[in-house]
Amino acid sequence: MFKVDIIYALEEQAGRQFAERLWGKRPTYAVVIGNTETAKIPGVSAAGAVPEITDFTPAADVELLFYGRCKCIDGVPVTPTGVPTPGIITMSALQLAPVPQYAINGGVRVRPHAPFFDVEGTPGEDIRTGRALKDPRRVYENSVILGRELAKNNSYLVIGESIAGGTTTALATLLAMGYDGEGKVSSSMIDNPHSVKTEIALEGVSNSPFSQEEMRTDPMKALQAVGDPMMPAAAGVVAGAAETIPVLMAGGTQMAAVMAIVKGMSPGSLSNVALGTTKWIVQDRSSDIRGIVEQIGKMPILAADLDFSASVHDGLSIYEKGLVKEGVGAGGISVSTFLQTQGRIGAQEMLGAVELNYVRLMAIMRK
Amino acid sequence: MFKVDIIYALEEQAGRQFAERLWGKRPTYAVVIGNTETAKIPGVSAAGAVPEITDFTPAADVELLFYGRCKCIDGVPVTPTGVPTPGIITMSALQLAPVPQYAINGGVRVRPHAPFFDVEGTPGEDIRTGRALKDPRRVYENSVILGRELAKNNSYLVIGESIAGGTTTALATLLAMGYDGEGKVSSSMIDNPHSVKTEIALEGVSNSPFSQEEMRTDPMKALQAVGDPMMPAAAGVVAGAAETIPVLMAGGTQMAAVMAIVKGMSPGSLSNVALGTTKWIVQDRSSDIRGIVEQIGKMPILAADLDFSASVHDGLSIYEKGLVKEGVGAGGISVSTFLQTQGRIGAQEMLGAVELNYVRLMAIMRK
Repeated sequence: MFKVDIIYALEEQAGRQFAERLWGKRPTYAVVIGNTETAKIPGVSAAGAVPEITDFTPAADVELLFYGRCKCIDGVPVTPTGVPTPGIITMSALQLAPVPQYAINGGVRVRPHAPFFDVEGTPGEDIRTGRALKDPRRVYENSVILGRELAKNNSYLVIGESIAGGTTTALATLLAMGYDGEGKVSSSMIDNPHSVKTEIALEGVSNSPFSQEEMRTDPMKALQAVGDPMMPAAAGVVAGAAETIPVLMAGGTQMAAVMAIVKGMSPGSLSNVALGTTKWIVQDRSSDIRGIVEQIGKMPILAADLDFSASVHDGLSIYEKGLVKEGVGAGGISVSTFLQTQGRIGAQEMLGAVELNYVRLMAIMRK
Repeated sequence: MFKVDIIYALEEQAGRQFAERLWGKRPTYAVVIGNTETAKIPGVSAAGAVPEITDFTPAADVELLFYGRCKCIDGVPVTPTGVPTPGIITMSALQLAPVPQYAINGGVRVRPHAPFFDVEGTPGEDIRTGRALKDPRRVYENSVILGRELAKNNSYLVIGESIAGGTTTALATLLAMGYDGEGKVSSSMIDNPHSVKTEIALEGVSNSPFSQEEMRTDPMKALQAVGDPMMPAAAGVVAGAAETIPVLMAGGTQMAAVMAIVKGMSPGSLSNVALGTTKWIVQDRSSDIRGIVEQIGKMPILAADLDFSASVHDGLSIYEKGLVKEGVGAGGISVSTFLQTQGRIGAQEMLGAVELNYVRLMAIMRK
């Protein structure tokens, strides 16, 4: 028996039971992508060198997973300081323990040059308008159907996301649904701009055409007002798949917001659900994922105990300082990789693979 | 051991070996949809009450499979004389032996209200222009990737199609690739309008910007000139999946044309491929599917020995007169249902289920 590099960060007993159910099994990975104009508000997102380019980040992440390189942009998505997308972690995990992978288009402006599921989603508006999404219910319903199909031949599902600006829309959606999310959502930046996010979120909630009560009782109204397009798609797939198989929701506070939506739409599905994330999220002092998840229910959090501190590459060791932290399901797919390989692959093997990919991709970028 | 209602219509020994590999196993079903303006040429297609409505037929077929009823049209797709889509057979088989099902959008004008894979396809032009498809190579390449993902967690794949006008484009594509298809493609009508089809196909081939030699050596050029959007998507998925798992190509002469494309693009994949169709196709005197497939290689044909002659419903018993014959993978999915259930479900059980669905759907239409 190998040591497995997983931190049971919340509801440890349920978390260990959940891990046992996945032990040695091969999941299917799905990544839900979307774009929201919210990402272009200055100071909101570091998921792109400049705000305008964040539209390309989700498509580029999908291409990275399918081809090992991006097609719609040169190089790979980077933060303004040049740190590469967490998709590099996801890609490395998928190379170490290959599983079927699917992209799901919740609503993007830039579509990946790769196959993807369409669930009738459209890109999201700036949530400050209070009219963020056109028809989240239709997207949710299509995604429930999709989740049920994905459940039929698969032992379990890992579902991640890529959407710039997503923690701000997560905060707004949590607030709209009556959760206390203030100061709790994480950030891809080292200095979490909580006040900017709260201001944007509250402006959106106050401009919503729905009452607080309507949004509290119907998550689709909360999404219509202040959600992002990733959310109804991810929530629907989780709700549909978790009717019959375990689902590891791979992400940080954005996925916690999706979990809250699932609770409102299909509470019975939650018994098959856990959150899978990174050490950098559960140890982050500028956010509080446990504080969000505890409001939803007794849900386990499994965090991949990744450690990039020994890396010679500044773009990786800086993860230990709190930059990027999570995304593209990096934490959850690391957790499932550790479990699938029964611990043979752990944090050390992951760092080795990530470093190889980092060197390769940085060489492409310099060309 | 039950009797299995399968006719080994070509390469019997290879066909029986293929069936043994699928015996008792649960496949995944994929249906590739597309629209071509060719379907609107008078006299070409019976996959819709009037030519203009054929744009809706593929989306409606997908909805029928997912919901047991259509959403984008009232009732179900019918021929001009009111005979319902063969999707009713596919739906019935999937109800008797449920399997994961996915729609793949090769390029449609009307998108289904259901989840589907997007492979960057666009609707096809009238093939008489010689410029039918915009970028079949990109669609093919995306679909190869998709086929490989679908192969990862599945024992085998059944792939069907729904596109009105598809036998005419199949003929044109076969001719462009140097196959002798004249008088050999089937029709959804009782009187097969061979002369109309040949005229259209030859006009398209002669207007192609590519030489006969270019189209013969590169199936993507043949498709760009006179193909339909179902073809590059279906061919890519078959080529990608059949690298590792068996693929039952579910359809008539249209799928035979797709098989010819696979041979040109990825000949090694053909060792994992068989054609699955209906008795009405292999016994059809107005077409010659064996005559097409024999030109491609030693490929087995397995035909579901369905028998609707005992049906009290004119809309079903008329199948025995040669109307409709095949579509939406009806024959192939019937074959896989017989094999999956090890013969417990056969032609008789299929007719029972089809009749129940027929009565239910006709009742909806009359409302």
